[in-house]
Amino acid sequence: MTILSSADRENNEKSSYFDLPSMEMSLAFPQATPASTFPPCTSDYYHFNDLLTPEEQAIRKKVRECMETNVAPIMTEYWEKAEFPFHIIPKLGAINVAGGSIKGYGCPGLSITANAIATAEIARVDASCSTFILVHSSLGMLTIALCGSVAQKQKYLPSLAQLKTVACWGLTEPDNGSDASGLRTTATKVEGGWRIEGQKRWIGNSTFADVLIIFARNTKTNQINGFIVKKDAPGLKATKMANKIGLRMVQNGDILLQNVFVPDEDRLPGVNSFQDTSKVLAVSRVMVAWQPIGISMGIYDMCHRYLKERKQFGAPLAAFQLNQQKLVQMLGNVQAMFLMGWRLCKLYEAGQMTPGQASLGKSWISLRARETASLGRELLGGNGILADFLVAKAFCDLEPIYTYEGTYDINSLVTGREVTGLASFKPTTRSRL
Amino acid sequence: MTILSSADRENNEKSSYFDLPSMEMSLAFPQATPASTFPPCTSDYYHFNDLLTPEEQAIRKKVRECMETNVAPIMTEYWEKAEFPFHIIPKLGAINVAGGSIKGYGCPGLSITANAIATAEIARVDASCSTFILVHSSLGMLTIALCGSVAQKQKYLPSLAQLKTVACWGLTEPDNGSDASGLRTTATKVEGGWRIEGQKRWIGNSTFADVLIIFARNTKTNQINGFIVKKDAPGLKATKMANKIGLRMVQNGDILLQNVFVPDEDRLPGVNSFQDTSKVLAVSRVMVAWQPIGISMGIYDMCHRYLKERKQFGAPLAAFQLNQQKLVQMLGNVQAMFLMGWRLCKLYEAGQMTPGQASLGKSWISLRARETASLGRELLGGNGILADFLVAKAFCDLEPIYTYEGTYDINSLVTGREVTGLASFKPTTRSRL
Amino acid sequence: MTILSSADRENNEKSSYFDLPSMEMSLAFPQATPASTFPPCTSDYYHFNDLLTPEEQAIRKKVRECMETNVAPIMTEYWEKAEFPFHIIPKLGAINVAGGSIKGYGCPGLSITANAIATAEIARVDASCSTFILVHSSLGMLTIALCGSVAQKQKYLPSLAQLKTVACWGLTEPDNGSDASGLRTTATKVEGGWRIEGQKRWIGNSTFADVLIIFARNTKTNQINGFIVKKDAPGLKATKMANKIGLRMVQNGDILLQNVFVPDEDRLPGVNSFQDTSKVLAVSRVMVAWQPIGISMGIYDMCHRYLKERKQFGAPLAAFQLNQQKLVQMLGNVQAMFLMGWRLCKLYEAGQMTPGQASLGKSWISLRARETASLGRELLGGNGILADFLVAKAFCDLEPIYTYEGTYDINSLVTGREVTGLASFKPTTRSRL
Amino acid sequence: MTILSSADRENNEKSSYFDLPSMEMSLAFPQATPASTFPPCTSDYYHFNDLLTPEEQAIRKKVRECMETNVAPIMTEYWEKAEFPFHIIPKLGAINVAGGSIKGYGCPGLSITANAIATAEIARVDASCSTFILVHSSLGMLTIALCGSVAQKQKYLPSLAQLKTVACWGLTEPDNGSDASGLRTTATKVEGGWRIEGQKRWIGNSTFADVLIIFARNTKTNQINGFIVKKDAPGLKATKMANKIGLRMVQNGDILLQNVFVPDEDRLPGVNSFQDTSKVLAVSRVMVAWQPIGISMGIYDMCHRYLKERKQFGAPLAAFQLNQQKLVQMLGNVQAMFLMGWRLCKLYEAGQMTPGQASLGKSWISLRARETASLGRELLGGNGILADFLVAKAFCDLEPIYTYEGTYDINSLVTGREVTGLASFKPTTRSRL
Repeated sequence: MTILSSADRENNEKSSYFDLPSMEMSLAFPQATPASTFPPCTSDYYHFNDLLTPEEQAIRKKVRECMETNVAPIMTEYWEKAEFPFHIIPKLGAINVAGGSIKGYGCPGLSITANAIATAEIARVDASCSTFILVHSSLGMLTIALCGSVAQKQKYLPSLAQLKTVACWGLTEPDNGSDASGLRTTATKVEGGWRIEGQKRWIGNSTFADVLIIFARNTKTNQINGFIVKKDAPGLKATKMANKIGLRMVQNGDILLQNVFVPDEDRLPGVNSFQDTSKVLAVSRVMVAWQPIGISMGIYDMCHRYLKERKQFGAPLAAFQLNQQKLVQMLGNVQAMFLMGWRLCKLYEAGQMTPGQASLGKSWISLRARETASLGRELLGGNGILADFLVAKAFCDLEPIYTYEGTYDINSLVTGREVTGLASFKPTTRSRL
Repeated sequence: MTILSSADRENNEKSSYFDLPSMEMSLAFPQATPASTFPPCTSDYYHFNDLLTPEEQAIRKKVRECMETNVAPIMTEYWEKAEFPFHIIPKLGAINVAGGSIKGYGCPGLSITANAIATAEIARVDASCSTFILVHSSLGMLTIALCGSVAQKQKYLPSLAQLKTVACWGLTEPDNGSDASGLRTTATKVEGGWRIEGQKRWIGNSTFADVLIIFARNTKTNQINGFIVKKDAPGLKATKMANKIGLRMVQNGDILLQNVFVPDEDRLPGVNSFQDTSKVLAVSRVMVAWQPIGISMGIYDMCHRYLKERKQFGAPLAAFQLNQQKLVQMLGNVQAMFLMGWRLCKLYEAGQMTPGQASLGKSWISLRARETASLGRELLGGNGILADFLVAKAFCDLEPIYTYEGTYDINSLVTGREVTGLASFKPTTRSRL
Repeated sequence: MTILSSADRENNEKSSYFDLPSMEMSLAFPQATPASTFPPCTSDYYHFNDLLTPEEQAIRKKVRECMETNVAPIMTEYWEKAEFPFHIIPKLGAINVAGGSIKGYGCPGLSITANAIATAEIARVDASCSTFILVHSSLGMLTIALCGSVAQKQKYLPSLAQLKTVACWGLTEPDNGSDASGLRTTATKVEGGWRIEGQKRWIGNSTFADVLIIFARNTKTNQINGFIVKKDAPGLKATKMANKIGLRMVQNGDILLQNVFVPDEDRLPGVNSFQDTSKVLAVSRVMVAWQPIGISMGIYDMCHRYLKERKQFGAPLAAFQLNQQKLVQMLGNVQAMFLMGWRLCKLYEAGQMTPGQASLGKSWISLRARETASLGRELLGGNGILADFLVAKAFCDLEPIYTYEGTYDINSLVTGREVTGLASFKPTTRSRL
Repeated sequence: MTILSSADRENNEKSSYFDLPSMEMSLAFPQATPASTFPPCTSDYYHFNDLLTPEEQAIRKKVRECMETNVAPIMTEYWEKAEFPFHIIPKLGAINVAGGSIKGYGCPGLSITANAIATAEIARVDASCSTFILVHSSLGMLTIALCGSVAQKQKYLPSLAQLKTVACWGLTEPDNGSDASGLRTTATKVEGGWRIEGQKRWIGNSTFADVLIIFARNTKTNQINGFIVKKDAPGLKATKMANKIGLRMVQNGDILLQNVFVPDEDRLPGVNSFQDTSKVLAVSRVMVAWQPIGISMGIYDMCHRYLKERKQFGAPLAAFQLNQQKLVQMLGNVQAMFLMGWRLCKLYEAGQMTPGQASLGKSWISLRARETASLGRELLGGNGILADFLVAKAFCDLEPIYTYEGTYDINSLVTGREVTGLASFKPTTRSRL
């Protein structure tokens, strides 16, 4: 044996080992089917499909087919690379869900329930795709629809609805995460428009979006205003945030706005204070609540197939008490999560949904999804570490969702304030009792 | 100071201390209202009442009023004594829910949903009362209704429906809990009837029931048969099981059947094998699933009022982050539990409910209820130890429910068998791998 | 069948049923041994005994034998009755642990570790007994030892050390639980002594204690002072708190002090502010942390025996995967709890223990004990509801311990303050953000 | 605005956006320090250092400094790339821990406790590095040391101890994960040596290791034998497993052995059955148990610093009740985990450690670590998604550790078998009860 110095070794390895391609999964591990061939849906144990209208059922079917056919085969690769698969955007455009509940301007005008079901079906296969659509549709487009002028809607929405252009939504800043209303980006009135100055962080889709909705503090009124910024605006720079553990396909950006000029026609007339974002957030929070539902469905479906395929000790893993109990707990969670999401949609459609109810939906559902993902991760053993078998990827994707659009804690306290009449967000600041 | 010997002390204490009555709660602890004045219902956060028909809403209201008025003021005392409050039986009879979904023979013929709501409303105030009714109605009466002859129904059901007589249901034996189908009590055919010999355990209401449904193994066919046994039958003895930590008002009995004669007319013609109990258990398991829903509602309602009344560190307990988060998690659980129970009823009413679905409902709901009770217990601090403030009592009452009609584990494995096609109840019996 | 009116029934039942004594457990349920014959100790899996000195091991053995012999056979009965078994006080006196680490005055002068081990061994069999001793010794006697004059120590400690007299310790008030330092009972200087006026609540042993340590606010200095009050003092009344779900043998009292005179000689010279209680609480919090350790050991030991005795589906319950996993999780918890308690003692003995470390020990250990008790409760199925099989009783006993001497939350925040330098006890009090 | 077709967009994006480098963390998020500057160790709250010998303390200090200095600054980058940083191997060699407890042959001859502490200190900063060392040292080298001939030890160990060469250890196969003893790779005796044929999976370090320990079934005896295979052996191919969510620096390989010849001198004489691996696994399982301890320490240390740096709502995150409670629960877990690991070492050193005790250590510690990581992930909010702030990376790294060297479930059942005397690994295989 030739003993190499470690310097030699590095060179040597590179030539003899690292150029070998990874083994095909079907050769390396033929014992169970990876998620590129997506498992059948076995998670609808309590027949929720029966709670949907025929139209909603049809949308569900169409979205599911699109995702299983187009996204499942390529998602592991793009997730690992942390790149967005731009070539599937036309496929997502073709299922006609961007724009969601917006009526007119080329938008599909779905019911909230249909929009929610579509969100879940996308997330069932790949959560990154559902976040891509959610940011684009339920934040970006919806802000234009609810707070924009007719001219703005006519100009921007049709192309966005077809996914010929992509939107993003810039609220969060490095200094203001949970405490979003304290944002510091400024908008100063100048001749013919506004000068925007500041920094944004975590903005999904922002590294490639055509249209950026940017919130900034009006230097005169000290209130929050909203602007449509185009990607080629001088002074605008968006750089990719690296090293994410979840939703790795989603391109979150750090945005620098250095003296960016926005013409008067691109100021959103309906945003005159932070409160004006609430109508948008009411819808988006419902949609966010449906992401963990879809993710959990996918996890269950995958585990259900896997446990029946994979054998150890001479029996399918599905025959072991410990595995059955985990699987059943997951199944119960999925049923309850679906019902919570469904009820939230019905409250919204009846015009009764309060912010506290939406926050409870998001926080409770994501808590149960986290438990479900953790159980599923265990059930797949070693293959629960590989993104190829879905659950590892879903387990990681859930974490940003647990935290965004209000962390679990913040959403709890929003509901808590509503049901007790007492706000408890801010701590006392004395350093010693 | 006179130092007493411990022997002296015992005598001395008895005279000087133990004869003092406990202090009135309103004097001892005026800071918060005990459950004898039951808290308002604030747990219906997602407006489930809107999912009920007007008839179902009316039953809900009637049952709630009866329980808050008649049971709340006396329940702590009877629970502590481990005695059943016989004087409230006529009040429970008057609300006309015994017999539940049975049609005819003086029974109310409720929808499953109405029956479930009534169960929950009883359990919201006192779980022991709901178990009393459940055993009487959804086990005892329902077995007669589903497996009895017309003559048996005519003879027994009208009086039972009015709660002029009380039923119990004897399946479990000392040797056969989770493995109920292995029961050993025997029924031997004799001239004009049957001789029953054996032992039962845990039989609710059995120490005072007028009518005992008893399951026994036919010594000829080796199959399970069912019998109506009357409380004055020679050879029958039922003694109270003492030292229970939960459902303390419920009188569970050890039943000895020593050569008990049952005439032919009291054999249930519809019970010819263990499988014949399944139609009864399908309904009763749904009703059992609604007990933890009601219990959790009561716990939430109590905690909600308590946190707003009780102050520490200069603020209501409701103003603390840690308390709000627990309260909100409980509230989320209650919403999800209610929806799971509701969906189960709808599946039943549509004729679609499977045993696995019922078992999932019971196991999942009781798991979340246990979490809810544990959080509520904490929220009440020291008063969470006293039955007077409901939560301590409810916390204890949940434990037998978590375990009866299939433990959490057994119900999980019933669902697991259904969704995997593989039974995992029995372990291998080799003593070493 | 004679149909009785419910009024008739009540009378009738009483004569024919309720006078029957409960069935002997050995006849009713011969399948498993109840805790009156206490199970062998199998919970010391990591050989902790080897971490003890020979003296500490000897004390452990002596206490264990006393408890298993004298208390195990009678504890279910007294727990159910919610009465204290006065006749065992001499037995507890004979093992010579009252007074714990106090040196001289007839006290045993144990190491903190020995005192802790004795506490755990008592709690392993019966938690109420350990609370009785803890209040008497680590609160009552220790306050006299640390804050009393030599004359007071000479007068009171020898008799208390022999358990010829019993002490209690009165700090908590109806209005001041977690926020104990805000107590309102007043002490006003008068000729030859003090007049004490106020109300106490939750005071263990107080309904029969010979010596009551009472904390009151000096009306002149507004600081907390301490007093030795004797049980026959005019104006003193202690009434039993009823309806507890846990530690039912412990007699917690509501104390009324109406113009109670205490002579100057019975004021504790070492208590001049609330901070002076901290030395006592440092020790008692360590001892309280050892109660859940002992309780959890007893639970494990009982479950271990039970699972091997009880059969279902043709195999001992110990052969089921689901049961083994619960049992092993409990066993892991017990090992970790013991080590945490042991390390806390070593830190104390080295003079290094901080309040935050003690609070962490108490809160962390009691959290794991709660999990352990909950698992054990499940493992025993229906017998997990009966105090006869220990676990049901222990499950309930743990709840007050989880809450007393600082709730889980308060102890967390004490540690949190120490490690962050920021106090977070008090919420902000604005009613809306 | 120019509306681009999506095909155009992809091209366009690539040029204008994706070539921008990510923003420097210090500019993008100056509010808190990333883990490249590693946080001080604040997790040793119960002064465990005092339980170590001066030698053990010195090793701890040396390893900590090496990791903080050399690995912390580069780990995020390599983890993201899923590449191993070969240039740090000499640094890891210089701290002289490879070989661990092996005496002689150039190995350090550490105590098990010292070896464990070193493992934890490596894992505190980066778990991938600790797995790299563990596979190399506690599996690869130790097998040679315990099962090899003197000649083999002389030939291989000195270079491995200096990390001039690297070892791996090949037991697991695609078909045999939890059921490792059933492996199918074969070794057939031929002239002068053996022919090995088969497939391995998950083998850490295998894509670049110089020395591969391979277990195979002797085709004559049907028993497991062990072999030293060199990386240039004809017929040997190891390809990298892609798409892992955790321990991304570790290079796990799929190994194909196609008619690989191993000379007689490279057969390990001490491996004649599967049982002969047990001495190796006894040590490695202890070391594996210390990985989650180290990971959890790092997580706590990072969270502690972060909560004090990061502000929201005008206060440091450390001032919020909800955050303090999570932090304190994590701190308690870390103390208990450390003590469990320490006690396990002491049992090993006393020659008393059983397989069940080792399995309990590994399973219990990894369960608590998982809880700790999950809490830590939450505490960091959005930054809990980025590997830059350690916790996200550690959260993911823990998952493979939870599963390898016996999943949580398998280790539970190993302990369960030992304490009950009943094996429950295999389920019954009937498909219906």
